[in-house]
Amino acid sequence: MNSPVETAIGSASRTGRAPDGFELQEDRLFPSDPRSRDLARELYSTVSSLNVISPHGHVEASMLAEDAAFSDPVSLLLSRDHYVLRLFHADGVDIERLGAGSGAPADPRAAWKIFCDRWHLLEGTASGYWMRDVLGRVLGLPVEPSPANAFTTYEFLQERLREAGMRPRALFERFNIEVLATTDDPLDSLDAHRQIRDDASFSGRVLPTFRPDAYLDPSGSGFVEATERLAAWSGAAVDDYTAYIRALEDRRGYFIEHGAVSADHGVHDLLTVDLDALEAASMYRRAVRGDLTSEEARVFRGHMLVESARMSVEDGLVMTVHPGVHRDHNDQILNRFGKDVGADIPVSTSFTENLRPLLQRYGLERDFHLVLFTIDETAYSREIAPLAGFYPSVYIGAPWWFLDAPDAIQRFRAATTETAGFSRASGFIDDTRAFLSIPARHDMARRADAVYLARLVLEGRLTHRAAARIIHELTSEQPRKVFKL
Amino acid sequence: MNSPVETAIGSASRTGRAPDGFELQEDRLFPSDPRSRDLARELYSTVSSLNVISPHGHVEASMLAEDAAFSDPVSLLLSRDHYVLRLFHADGVDIERLGAGSGAPADPRAAWKIFCDRWHLLEGTASGYWMRDVLGRVLGLPVEPSPANAFTTYEFLQERLREAGMRPRALFERFNIEVLATTDDPLDSLDAHRQIRDDASFSGRVLPTFRPDAYLDPSGSGFVEATERLAAWSGAAVDDYTAYIRALEDRRGYFIEHGAVSADHGVHDLLTVDLDALEAASMYRRAVRGDLTSEEARVFRGHMLVESARMSVEDGLVMTVHPGVHRDHNDQILNRFGKDVGADIPVSTSFTENLRPLLQRYGLERDFHLVLFTIDETAYSREIAPLAGFYPSVYIGAPWWFLDAPDAIQRFRAATTETAGFSRASGFIDDTRAFLSIPARHDMARRADAVYLARLVLEGRLTHRAAARIIHELTSEQPRKVFKL
Amino acid sequence: MNSPVETAIGSASRTGRAPDGFELQEDRLFPSDPRSRDLARELYSTVSSLNVISPHGHVEASMLAEDAAFSDPVSLLLSRDHYVLRLFHADGVDIERLGAGSGAPADPRAAWKIFCDRWHLLEGTASGYWMRDVLGRVLGLPVEPSPANAFTTYEFLQERLREAGMRPRALFERFNIEVLATTDDPLDSLDAHRQIRDDASFSGRVLPTFRPDAYLDPSGSGFVEATERLAAWSGAAVDDYTAYIRALEDRRGYFIEHGAVSADHGVHDLLTVDLDALEAASMYRRAVRGDLTSEEARVFRGHMLVESARMSVEDGLVMTVHPGVHRDHNDQILNRFGKDVGADIPVSTSFTENLRPLLQRYGLERDFHLVLFTIDETAYSREIAPLAGFYPSVYIGAPWWFLDAPDAIQRFRAATTETAGFSRASGFIDDTRAFLSIPARHDMARRADAVYLARLVLEGRLTHRAAARIIHELTSEQPRKVFKL
Repeated sequence: MNSPVETAIGSASRTGRAPDGFELQEDRLFPSDPRSRDLARELYSTVSSLNVISPHGHVEASMLAEDAAFSDPVSLLLSRDHYVLRLFHADGVDIERLGAGSGAPADPRAAWKIFCDRWHLLEGTASGYWMRDVLGRVLGLPVEPSPANAFTTYEFLQERLREAGMRPRALFERFNIEVLATTDDPLDSLDAHRQIRDDASFSGRVLPTFRPDAYLDPSGSGFVEATERLAAWSGAAVDDYTAYIRALEDRRGYFIEHGAVSADHGVHDLLTVDLDALEAASMYRRAVRGDLTSEEARVFRGHMLVESARMSVEDGLVMTVHPGVHRDHNDQILNRFGKDVGADIPVSTSFTENLRPLLQRYGLERDFHLVLFTIDETAYSREIAPLAGFYPSVYIGAPWWFLDAPDAIQRFRAATTETAGFSRASGFIDDTRAFLSIPARHDMARRADAVYLARLVLEGRLTHRAAARIIHELTSEQPRKVFKL
Repeated sequence: MNSPVETAIGSASRTGRAPDGFELQEDRLFPSDPRSRDLARELYSTVSSLNVISPHGHVEASMLAEDAAFSDPVSLLLSRDHYVLRLFHADGVDIERLGAGSGAPADPRAAWKIFCDRWHLLEGTASGYWMRDVLGRVLGLPVEPSPANAFTTYEFLQERLREAGMRPRALFERFNIEVLATTDDPLDSLDAHRQIRDDASFSGRVLPTFRPDAYLDPSGSGFVEATERLAAWSGAAVDDYTAYIRALEDRRGYFIEHGAVSADHGVHDLLTVDLDALEAASMYRRAVRGDLTSEEARVFRGHMLVESARMSVEDGLVMTVHPGVHRDHNDQILNRFGKDVGADIPVSTSFTENLRPLLQRYGLERDFHLVLFTIDETAYSREIAPLAGFYPSVYIGAPWWFLDAPDAIQRFRAATTETAGFSRASGFIDDTRAFLSIPARHDMARRADAVYLARLVLEGRLTHRAAARIIHELTSEQPRKVFKL
Repeated sequence: MNSPVETAIGSASRTGRAPDGFELQEDRLFPSDPRSRDLARELYSTVSSLNVISPHGHVEASMLAEDAAFSDPVSLLLSRDHYVLRLFHADGVDIERLGAGSGAPADPRAAWKIFCDRWHLLEGTASGYWMRDVLGRVLGLPVEPSPANAFTTYEFLQERLREAGMRPRALFERFNIEVLATTDDPLDSLDAHRQIRDDASFSGRVLPTFRPDAYLDPSGSGFVEATERLAAWSGAAVDDYTAYIRALEDRRGYFIEHGAVSADHGVHDLLTVDLDALEAASMYRRAVRGDLTSEEARVFRGHMLVESARMSVEDGLVMTVHPGVHRDHNDQILNRFGKDVGADIPVSTSFTENLRPLLQRYGLERDFHLVLFTIDETAYSREIAPLAGFYPSVYIGAPWWFLDAPDAIQRFRAATTETAGFSRASGFIDDTRAFLSIPARHDMARRADAVYLARLVLEGRLTHRAAARIIHELTSEQPRKVFKL
């Protein structure tokens, strides 16, 4: 990963104040106290070059199957990055100009100029931290974007993207990605995954993930259409609950054949309900006709979470749950741009009572893995760490979305470790659709863990040897174990 | 702001342990690690003498219009400061002796003795921090209050208050206040504001703020009386909804003519409801007869928040919302002393769902500014920063009330910046009725921001240049922009 | 407390990296920055040897009455420690092998081997921190448990437990316990307490605590049986509400005669309801027949909290409330092992509204002490500190259960002090059934307070003299005052 630009960056680091160019300090994220900094650096250095294990994210397999050069910096870096779009939207930018919705801006150069003009919006944010790494380290841009350099930086980046080393597979290898999981519709053919697997010229391991929300939630706009497609695939009547369950199981089997290790569930609230089969079948028949009240739809969705847990117990797919987000908070934005442009807002989330029906049934199953994520960080110390510290099935997911940020990671570790230790944590999960940010995100997590562990050592709460072992486990063994890799 | 006392204080500072007198260390609030401390001090020094911009608070305009000398230290510093009264009440003091309710104690010397005897109650609190600044720096008291010096310190302060430089306008100038907003009843004549504006001998800018709660909330005890007064003013029938809305709009216009830039809303919970005009009118007719159930009253209040947002879209007044406080938690205290003696207790507050009706309607309006405050700090990372990081209208209000304190400010910055950066923050707002504490509060905020920014720089997350620019923006540009000053 | 082993440990400390054996650094928990560390150490040293005051916990009086040698390390250290059991359960251990449920494992040596094999599960946890202290300092174990030393460490510990100095009363004295409160059923004969008190050879003060939950909560499984036992004791009809109240009052009187200073209430949620006597009596008659709906049972329990407050106002017992835990989250575990093996999970808890009926009635009573605990730490800054900073009766309980841990204590102090100062805090409460961990827990709290206070001093927010006084008060005066000792 060394280039002349990086070398130049390297020489400017450690000073804290490079007058020009990117500051990507070697010691970034480490505390300023010298003892803490030295120990954090030492711990970090033992894991900084370990392979990346990415068991959950949103990179598309087709990108790696096709391995085409990226067309331009804006569609690559901005148009689909909802973390970035949202801040520019808040600042009054018409995000259509950045390619929101379409994925490609009409005028990439004008879009890049907007980005350069408002680069300061990202200051202090996690997105800004990753973007500096992407631009400075992955792409080798020698200076920070600024209104004055919009033209030259665009040209520089455009030139870079034409290099063979900037194609997806080359980056995959440069990033030391050992395994990358995508997120896929249950009826996806997984052709791209098969193509990657069958291609002898590429050894990267790219796994699908079963994401059935649209098929499980009658309150979602696409439920009727999704269940119809599923019935068409299975050849059963659309209102046949048994066939519906069977079809979901079959599709999970198909995903498993293609390497899937987990099924992912994104739900607005976390209610789980343990209906008997007759109730569920009756409710399902009305659901496919769009006849459920919103409360009934919520109950059925809660039942299908428990059913999904049962399937995981039976077929071994790790169950990940991402609850507590009000998706598409603004209808105008949804209608104009569609989903995932930055209008998703978290809500308060409770796990203890809501998950109880599921955990009463399956919480003690030994090969069942349930990984809990939250954006309501109050749940970490109050509910998630206590649950994971008792149930053999429950693991604490990595800080997610808005909480995947340097300070939030420290809060996460502090809120969960004293109750549940390190063995109940999933290890880092990047959850990103921004492919180029993968090394930055994993690097950030490793640095953050080094900072946390160094503090425990210096406070006499952990031996140095234990810290050295734990940072390796969090980076490597723990995600393998939790995601059965 | 230099006096012999301050010089003496200055020489005792930096040691960490002055044996006598006030410790007001020059480096107060800065961390002990030398690199952090040096950088925090440097950043702070660039903004420490900037003008104070106070776009929301509770100082009364009449005080500046009349410019009378303060009568005594107790009624000035204690009788109306609910932060102080509450702690003395909790310790068993009969707060009537401190002037609670009346605003002036029967025996100020005896009240001051109580204060000196229990000065330790304020240790570690934000009030104690400000009080040290007020006594030591503004009033020049050379020693900490103690049981032994109650008589001499009272005499010293009483003497000070007779000085011309201790009158409200002189202090206004000494404090470098550029603009100060008061909080006013919609039917206030604003005579005091006009008098200040028309007085060529005083150049201070004192703006009214429209605070219509009593007129919008049928569950408040004064609603019927308030709407009757409003109808009397407008000449319309009290149950005429259209006239009621018109009258509110007219009063807002009157406030705007007198310099108002914002309308402030204090609500128990944040429900917003988008009723149609017929429903609203029907509900209003019953409301003025006191005929709403408590749930209906809640709905009507929620509707009036949306109506207030519409008015802000039309007339440009910034909308500030202070939700989530159970006012007057104890009836005995309310009946004996009235409001604002310290019996207000926060409650859990949700923004994402509750604000959605309002934001669906007006959230994308470009000149609409909605500043959200909270005392439920869990909302910062979970809801407020995500909302402000998406909606162009939403700004993150400064830490409010119990959260306006050194550690809470660090938590606030850490909880909001990684998601929303700095551009979505309101800048500091003192929200105080304690006039003499204004410099201490703004100084505390500047120090706290310097500490936070220094940390980001030393952790390689922000360039030094950016930090220097941002602390200036947070102190000066950002409140001007957010409050349209 | 010095032994050759401890001396050896001592010489390995301060280095941060002892290659072998236990690291129990003298400076543990202190921050790495030298100024902070020095001041924290200095403050800590002034209280490190003060007597232990333990006004609430779960050690059994019979243990001290009988003063028998502990049988083996496993039943002493593991079988009843639900903090430890839970983490081993989560890791897949059959906790019956550790003695869960029975309190004594079938094969203690095999159990100790399990513990040694999975010692790493405790790394970074509060339990691990205490366990290191118990093993290294109380029991003098010279090395950390490891798979290789399971046999020798068991033998070492077993040998130690045969020493006279390892009997309960000897440890009580060695631990410098001045007062220790147990937690007892209202119908407990308190024979053990009397036996201890009457034994001239032991001067330790061991007080009972009145814990009436089973008698007050109709939704608990044992309510009918408990009220029948109470009626049998009093000789009244079981459905006689007046006699029921009288009997509770009489039992409180009996506890007071035996030295009790507090009554403890563990409730799932904190609802308080102020029913009139007729309603309450009618509800009670149905409750003892098991005829209440779950919502009615909740209301009756809420009423009995208010009644308990009334009794405390009258008889002076301090009222402690531990709300917000879903006890026995998993039925399989409850059925197999019974209570208290680690399956209790916290829930979100609100105090402001829920406690209002109680506080309206009794919140201003001067000799009423209500100590509020929480595992929902969001309540600290939002509700508990504001309530305690206003109501003379309300005190902030020490961080409880999962929050009784080094980082959580820092968060607790930061979240409460800026609002309520130090005078409203209860001082440390260990709440433990792990007798040997008492010194470790109190030591941890003193170190944590030293760290917090040192920070305030170095940030210029507290004088050095005040910090020195406050750490003494928090350790000694404050628990005496709050618990009327």
